[in-house]
Amino acid sequence: MTHAGRERPAFTIDAFHRGDFWLVQPRDAGHRAGMDALMLAAAVPSGFRGHLADFGAGAGAAGLAVAARCPDATVTLVEQSAEMAGFARQTLAHEGNARLASRVSLLEADVTLTGKARAAVGLADDSCDFVIMNPPFNMASDRSTPDELRRRAHVMEDGLFETWLRSAAAVARPRAGLALIARPQSLPQILAALAGRFGSAEIIPIHPRADAAAIRIVLRARKGARGGLALRPPLILHEHGHKLSARADATSNGQASLFGD
Amino acid sequence: MTHAGRERPAFTIDAFHRGDFWLVQPRDAGHRAGMDALMLAAAVPSGFRGHLADFGAGAGAAGLAVAARCPDATVTLVEQSAEMAGFARQTLAHEGNARLASRVSLLEADVTLTGKARAAVGLADDSCDFVIMNPPFNMASDRSTPDELRRRAHVMEDGLFETWLRSAAAVARPRAGLALIARPQSLPQILAALAGRFGSAEIIPIHPRADAAAIRIVLRARKGARGGLALRPPLILHEHGHKLSARADATSNGQASLFGD
Repeated sequence: MTHAGRERPAFTIDAFHRGDFWLVQPRDAGHRAGMDALMLAAAVPSGFRGHLADFGAGAGAAGLAVAARCPDATVTLVEQSAEMAGFARQTLAHEGNARLASRVSLLEADVTLTGKARAAVGLADDSCDFVIMNPPFNMASDRSTPDELRRRAHVMEDGLFETWLRSAAAVARPRAGLALIARPQSLPQILAALAGRFGSAEIIPIHPRADAAAIRIVLRARKGARGGLALRPPLILHEHGHKLSARADATSNGQASLFGD
Repeated sequence: MTHAGRERPAFTIDAFHRGDFWLVQPRDAGHRAGMDALMLAAAVPSGFRGHLADFGAGAGAAGLAVAARCPDATVTLVEQSAEMAGFARQTLAHEGNARLASRVSLLEADVTLTGKARAAVGLADDSCDFVIMNPPFNMASDRSTPDELRRRAHVMEDGLFETWLRSAAAVARPRAGLALIARPQSLPQILAALAGRFGSAEIIPIHPRADAAAIRIVLRARKGARGGLALRPPLILHEHGHKLSARADATSNGQASLFGD
């Protein structure tokens, strides 16, 4: 419970990648960026060159993390919520991101649009070399907060992965990369939606501790590729109690890519 | 390359679980039992009571491993190949298995049969409390040996998991357990075939070394359960070079169950 006074702004400005970029984001409401966005961004190879779309960008954490680590990447943040897009706009205007802002743009659009409607809002077919997505994957059955913004960011809709991956496949060029972060229980829906669109998928499970079940999966794939699914060694977030593991620290701070490339 | 003389039998008799049971199996041809069968058997809880079917039992390794570790289990080995069923028959007749043989039977049958044909060969609906399966999962595209028996045991057919899991769901009683071992690249087909039949699936990836991709997954689920998929911490086979890890050794020798129950 917070007790905000009149002088307390409704947003925070937080450093990521040890100060490499900054995020303007809601203080108490909406979807605050954290480990998920950073792990998603880390799935992009460090040598990536080309154009990347960040579906469900929120205030821009994942897209900016890619821009910060990959100097030859250009990024479009795609966010449907006007309120979160407003934070992304403030993020791009922040002086701490001046070095990156020329390579990052914002598109306020619904990634679930199809066909001409999708192209009309700016999501053109065959326009991206990589698509990353952090879909609103908390199940509707989870205990949820009454906060409407957070609810919209987290409620799983039927067919969510089908609609998001359909659009990702449309905007992706042949052989373009895809990365997503999700809960392990979404794997059946994800694999079904990848079929015929993206292949050679690789999964890195993320476990909070070495002896606990995975809380997230990061999946990477390539448009039109034919290879089978691979399960990579997991990432363990915490070793020796609460301390972040060296790999999790490096990965979430832009020092290393998640897949080692 | 072996140079078999006339006196050299075409089979071997091998101890498993450090002598708890024995397997009569082809020396050079067919599908020789190994780690896969033992890891599959280890997915059954140690306290399991009831009737278990071992689909694709070969010479009987997995089914006998369950019977050896679970004293209140009865087991039906289901094997289509007349030649492998012959080895299973010899296995059950072997004096080293006398303690177990009264609880284990052999059914020479094709698990992909449906409806009345399936029931007619002895695979009755609602008759099992657990089904385990080690399907012929090596892809047809793999480099294969000319040996016909091994080919039949290993070649993946279209719809293999769909047909095997359909039969597993039919013979399983409500809330019955399911365990299978497969390659990670079969996960899309497996998850699609589980849908509407088995739920609350849990996966343990098996990695040869901590830094290598998984070579197998062991998946466990429950008929009619509603829970989502969980990814458990992986099992690492080899630590410190070629040495079998303590957990892999205990699991493959009947000292511990794979899922810790």
